[in-house]
Amino acid sequence: MELTAREIAAHLNGEVEGNPDLKVSGFARIEQGTPGTLCFLANTKYEEWLYKTKASLVIVNKSFKLKQAVPYTIVWVDDAYRGIAAMLDLYAAANAVKKKGRERPSHVSWRAKVGKDCYIGAFAYISRGAKIGNNVKIFPHVYVGDGVTIGDNSILYSGAKIYAGCHVGKNCILHSSAIIGADGFGFAPDAEKNYKKIPQIGNVVLEDDVEVGANTCIDRATMNSTIIRQGVKLDNLIQLGHNVEIGRNTVIAACAAIAGSTKMGERCMVGGQAGAVGHLHIGNDVMLGAKTGVSNDLADGESRGGWPDMPVGLFRRVSVLLRKLPELFLQVSALEKELKKISENKN
Amino acid sequence: MELTAREIAAHLNGEVEGNPDLKVSGFARIEQGTPGTLCFLANTKYEEWLYKTKASLVIVNKSFKLKQAVPYTIVWVDDAYRGIAAMLDLYAAANAVKKKGRERPSHVSWRAKVGKDCYIGAFAYISRGAKIGNNVKIFPHVYVGDGVTIGDNSILYSGAKIYAGCHVGKNCILHSSAIIGADGFGFAPDAEKNYKKIPQIGNVVLEDDVEVGANTCIDRATMNSTIIRQGVKLDNLIQLGHNVEIGRNTVIAACAAIAGSTKMGERCMVGGQAGAVGHLHIGNDVMLGAKTGVSNDLADGESRGGWPDMPVGLFRRVSVLLRKLPELFLQVSALEKELKKISENKN
Amino acid sequence: MELTAREIAAHLNGEVEGNPDLKVSGFARIEQGTPGTLCFLANTKYEEWLYKTKASLVIVNKSFKLKQAVPYTIVWVDDAYRGIAAMLDLYAAANAVKKKGRERPSHVSWRAKVGKDCYIGAFAYISRGAKIGNNVKIFPHVYVGDGVTIGDNSILYSGAKIYAGCHVGKNCILHSSAIIGADGFGFAPDAEKNYKKIPQIGNVVLEDDVEVGANTCIDRATMNSTIIRQGVKLDNLIQLGHNVEIGRNTVIAACAAIAGSTKMGERCMVGGQAGAVGHLHIGNDVMLGAKTGVSNDLADGESRGGWPDMPVGLFRRVSVLLRKLPELFLQVSALEKELKKISENKN
Repeated sequence: MELTAREIAAHLNGEVEGNPDLKVSGFARIEQGTPGTLCFLANTKYEEWLYKTKASLVIVNKSFKLKQAVPYTIVWVDDAYRGIAAMLDLYAAANAVKKKGRERPSHVSWRAKVGKDCYIGAFAYISRGAKIGNNVKIFPHVYVGDGVTIGDNSILYSGAKIYAGCHVGKNCILHSSAIIGADGFGFAPDAEKNYKKIPQIGNVVLEDDVEVGANTCIDRATMNSTIIRQGVKLDNLIQLGHNVEIGRNTVIAACAAIAGSTKMGERCMVGGQAGAVGHLHIGNDVMLGAKTGVSNDLADGESRGGWPDMPVGLFRRVSVLLRKLPELFLQVSALEKELKKISENKN
Repeated sequence: MELTAREIAAHLNGEVEGNPDLKVSGFARIEQGTPGTLCFLANTKYEEWLYKTKASLVIVNKSFKLKQAVPYTIVWVDDAYRGIAAMLDLYAAANAVKKKGRERPSHVSWRAKVGKDCYIGAFAYISRGAKIGNNVKIFPHVYVGDGVTIGDNSILYSGAKIYAGCHVGKNCILHSSAIIGADGFGFAPDAEKNYKKIPQIGNVVLEDDVEVGANTCIDRATMNSTIIRQGVKLDNLIQLGHNVEIGRNTVIAACAAIAGSTKMGERCMVGGQAGAVGHLHIGNDVMLGAKTGVSNDLADGESRGGWPDMPVGLFRRVSVLLRKLPELFLQVSALEKELKKISENKN
Repeated sequence: MELTAREIAAHLNGEVEGNPDLKVSGFARIEQGTPGTLCFLANTKYEEWLYKTKASLVIVNKSFKLKQAVPYTIVWVDDAYRGIAAMLDLYAAANAVKKKGRERPSHVSWRAKVGKDCYIGAFAYISRGAKIGNNVKIFPHVYVGDGVTIGDNSILYSGAKIYAGCHVGKNCILHSSAIIGADGFGFAPDAEKNYKKIPQIGNVVLEDDVEVGANTCIDRATMNSTIIRQGVKLDNLIQLGHNVEIGRNTVIAACAAIAGSTKMGERCMVGGQAGAVGHLHIGNDVMLGAKTGVSNDLADGESRGGWPDMPVGLFRRVSVLLRKLPELFLQVSALEKELKKISENKN
């Protein structure tokens, strides 16, 4: 895909500074830019590279002021991050996987329904009663259990597994070894502390536009459904317990874990390796920093850090003070001695 | 499956209050109960729903006192959680997967032995020397390595992988992409800090009645065996290192990690995202809170929290006080000033 | 494999004390040694077992002094850990998997190239444009995407998945369900906080001699490459985000997570469940303790612990003092009271 600076600016509603006829044919990160590539600057942490990059064209925010002249062509835009995203979309659409049809051997039950224009890779397994929409891509080694439904345009990468009875909406992406609908972790101890399995007879419902990262697990409900609402984005290696509910457009970073029956609201942002205990209500627009552990309900809009969690501003102050704890102990010892001296002098 | 209140009470040794001929045909969580469904109240956190649920029948502990009249039929029992578990068992038994026989294509070495009444799904792979008991269910995409043994009635869900030489007991459940017997993480640095792999020639032994969650990893021993004793229940995404030993009826929640050669006793409970360093001895009946990190041996019956770990009661107090650390620093500063004033006044 | 003490000593440049003609035929951990087995003592934590083991032969460091006579034969060596590693190598070489050839059914695109002496297990899938070197072992259920390259002598265990366009070097080992090249976690919110996927058009490059643990995920770069340098060893269940770079001979323990665009230097050691936020520069020879969370750049040679991270020595002191926090609060309260008394007395 070759584009001129003029075409890029037109596509992004931006302005060219430099050579509008300059052609680029690839993308690169600004610190790795080479002649013929297109880069962008959105995170000012990389600003130094503006003056060092070997890229031919850089997309920059109009609000940004250059501190020195640069040798390459610039396309000024309102939002460089969205700009590069739009360019990547263009590239991705041109290079999208166009796989279609059914490879053999694959197992498609005669009691399953498969829509139009689907790809079913070799060694994929589709059980009886499954209903697959149109234009769905099912890569090799995917397992689709009994009675599973999958909406139009969804993509299941190699090794994704969906247990019986679960539902996947439209435009969903499940990465490799994402496991949807394994049994929730429910056991009841008998008198001798032998654990007896509580059957997990519910399911998992992924609404539309959900992305599930590689090796992420979403357990089926004990009863009713574990529900992942529209537009939720889950990174890799996440654990969502039985009967969890995640609200619309919430994003969760890698290695986070939400225990059973916790409900999380809309537009929340959960950091990597964060966790929440079970049976909580977490409001909308909540932010949890990396490694945060939530142990109580949270109202809308809260930002939390630490374990157990506290307001993120407090967490930052506490973090700084923790490093001064050895000094504080010494200070208090010194105070005690001095006070003792004063008391003794008085008597 | 349709049951009357009378039949349910009889099955649970309970008492009906309301209509003994009322029929229910499904299960629901109390907050999601609908007419025709059966619910239960075990966790008093959901008590308000007793007065709001639309369920037709609710199972409640005899020890519980209703605060107002309710419109539905109640079955009073000694233990509502066990009661619902028993009802779910009944349901699950009636709806159990009855798959049997061998689907094609699948790979079963002529030097493997497979017992009676097994299910072997398409694309499953059973290597030479493997011995599979009776009534074992091996779903599609399962890998059973050379010389692996699997006891009667075990279930291996799609994508579970068992490396060569490992043993799985009777009545075990391995969820999707549970990985049994990958190499332990052992390397020896040479003079240039290049790491040389230490061959891992041991195996993994799962005794009977073990459940292993989705994407959980149990590494093979360097020598001898990594051992998971009878009745252990492991949630998803857990890491158990080489030569770990987990005692009978211990339960471990998701995302926990136990490093190499650590031995953990019986009936322990490990919280989500908790961890233990290697080469520890952890006693029986130990409880580790979520996110706890254990760095020293623990005696029987200890309850620990925090990182590094401390007694859980102390951890709770410390957690509360941490949030007051900024105030404490101010208090100590104020004390210092005041003391300085007193000292100066005196001189 | 049967060896005499004399042969072992010759292989290890060691010295026999006891019967040079003694034969051993297996390995065991010292606490599990039985007659006929070979053990070693490297970690003095297990020293008591020197006097209790039932092994026939033990490999011990020359620098070690026995406290009492022992009934078995000893081979004294300079480094017992390397000694046992060398013996395990000998054993592993004799017992190495010698699988070769292509099992059916498997899918190898006619537009893929496969080198000499490879093993391709049943149900493996090799896409078009893939290039597999010589002596590569591809176990069942492995997925190799379009245009992937794999160097000589690499081993991909059952269920490893490599997305399109990624590169795996020579002598690499990928354990089951290691996922190489799933999409990086990149989304741009629109005005309504609906997240739009940023296409991830880069790839992953594993250089030579890299080992990737079971269920570990390495995401493809947004642009350019996520790079794992020569000799890196990754344990199980690790997350490496898009555009991460890990320097030569760095080792990372299980359940660690490195967020997007962070660069880590050479010879680092990262503990279990540790994490690093994105866009950091971490130097060479850095050590991160278990559960450490790194939130700022780190210079060469730093050792860090805690969350947020601090120098590991400080972290240890702070950890001890944390447990005394309740006392400190009481001390400060007492000081305040006493001071108040003094002030009142004075006035």
